[in-house]
Amino acid sequence: MTVFTPADPAYQARVRDSFARQSIMALIGAELVRVEPGLVEIQLPYRADLCQQHGFFHAGITSTIGDSAGGYAAYTLFPADSSVLTTEFKINLLAPAAGERLSAVGRVLKPGRSLTICDVEVFAVQDGEAKLCAKLLQTLMTMHRKTDRPPPG
Amino acid sequence: MTVFTPADPAYQARVRDSFARQSIMALIGAELVRVEPGLVEIQLPYRADLCQQHGFFHAGITSTIGDSAGGYAAYTLFPADSSVLTTEFKINLLAPAAGERLSAVGRVLKPGRSLTICDVEVFAVQDGEAKLCAKLLQTLMTMHRKTDRPPPG
Amino acid sequence: MTVFTPADPAYQARVRDSFARQSIMALIGAELVRVEPGLVEIQLPYRADLCQQHGFFHAGITSTIGDSAGGYAAYTLFPADSSVLTTEFKINLLAPAAGERLSAVGRVLKPGRSLTICDVEVFAVQDGEAKLCAKLLQTLMTMHRKTDRPPPG
Amino acid sequence: MTVFTPADPAYQARVRDSFARQSIMALIGAELVRVEPGLVEIQLPYRADLCQQHGFFHAGITSTIGDSAGGYAAYTLFPADSSVLTTEFKINLLAPAAGERLSAVGRVLKPGRSLTICDVEVFAVQDGEAKLCAKLLQTLMTMHRKTDRPPPG
Repeated sequence: MTVFTPADPAYQARVRDSFARQSIMALIGAELVRVEPGLVEIQLPYRADLCQQHGFFHAGITSTIGDSAGGYAAYTLFPADSSVLTTEFKINLLAPAAGERLSAVGRVLKPGRSLTICDVEVFAVQDGEAKLCAKLLQTLMTMHRKTDRPPPG
Repeated sequence: MTVFTPADPAYQARVRDSFARQSIMALIGAELVRVEPGLVEIQLPYRADLCQQHGFFHAGITSTIGDSAGGYAAYTLFPADSSVLTTEFKINLLAPAAGERLSAVGRVLKPGRSLTICDVEVFAVQDGEAKLCAKLLQTLMTMHRKTDRPPPG
Repeated sequence: MTVFTPADPAYQARVRDSFARQSIMALIGAELVRVEPGLVEIQLPYRADLCQQHGFFHAGITSTIGDSAGGYAAYTLFPADSSVLTTEFKINLLAPAAGERLSAVGRVLKPGRSLTICDVEVFAVQDGEAKLCAKLLQTLMTMHRKTDRPPPG
Repeated sequence: MTVFTPADPAYQARVRDSFARQSIMALIGAELVRVEPGLVEIQLPYRADLCQQHGFFHAGITSTIGDSAGGYAAYTLFPADSSVLTTEFKINLLAPAAGERLSAVGRVLKPGRSLTICDVEVFAVQDGEAKLCAKLLQTLMTMHRKTDRPPPG
């Protein structure tokens, strides 16, 4: 496993602050549980209003926490005065997203000045057992000298 | 454009019924606005609680309506006693998902007995102008002789 | 269909020159048959040594001409003093790549200063009939002020 | 790492036999160097006629050996009377494919009766050092009771 050294010593606060501004995370009840250099974990407790027609987590919700886990894993390595943007990702759904909660673990595969590639695993957790239910391969862009906050007004 | 003939004459009701059981659609406020053979459109009005850190729709929410638009486009062509499952998709985010609402249009590219491939375009609509903001390429599986409803209990 | 205006009036010669330096194209016998603003077509006649185990074109060869068709479609719109790099693509194989030849048509979906997104269709042509056999969604990067030629030595 | 038990004890011979019928592998000079349950490695020595315009391996050639490495990793776990088909893959190009040779290592991530998902890493090897240059996420289909050989005639 590659060991990364963040360019910005305050990377943790920067990621937590950005996550707190992702309003969708509050709506669905997602929690940021781990922020390390090149690695972020987001957990999502089961709720009956996050589902597809069979009562499992909707693939779009699995994608939502997977995308943010990878995006913030990349963002841990970005410079202080930058923002992060997903340019694309691909997700394979390996097993039903069924369980008490989902856990999405994003890891930087290849950092870069402009583009960073992440690998994300999403686990369905039931009775303490974590089962891999989705895998993402994702490209993030560093937006240099761009605020991570919304435009004013 | 290929013209498709659904195997199940009641495909519209079957799709609408399944969509109504996707609880996430109610949570985010998504609406099923078009159901035709091999084509489904889902719209999503802007809400401040569906966003990423810049105040635009989160990529996962764009994925959520994109995935369902493609999935139900495929499902229009499935037999009556089947269910639909997304096996994978890839999404490219082409422009900020900013506007009054998103419109996701899913189209069947290639139907098949086991696998169906769909192409999905997501537009950001502002002042009556629709701008392509995301593109998905997606694989759906037909689950033959499987109910589209949740397991009992 | 979007109409594009190339920044470099000599885009045709630039693309043809670069294609001629892709040695793999000569090895497999691929031909550059169309170069228009934002659109490139590459054809590949069938040969028994380009196949997978069933005697059809190998998916990697379908990918090879698909990747170059999309890459050069993007490159038509790039500035004169730049090079092109594929950062990623996804391919869905829709039907057996069986026929007298393959035709890959790459189209720019969204040009950008740094990243360009292309949509590529690959057709299997038999007895004058073209059947869509693969679809790619691809991201290209503009390498500004970088020669498109190999490093010296 | 999951340990897999092949359904067919003769899986090694079956994979080697199929690889030998992939004529493209002979054309480009690819070698099958490792066949284990759920894992296959293919190596490709550098040749000047396998390149893109900068003199590196063409992304389509990286894809070609990556696709076969993942496809045969899946095929090790398939029943004796079956064939294998790639339905889709996504590839991220992480670094220039530059070196003495490429090594593609395909691993089964999730086996299934109908669909198997593989993760493939491609390394560029130079002076004994292997650098990750591409990553694939791929879906394979088991074609039950279908010969892996070409149709007669």
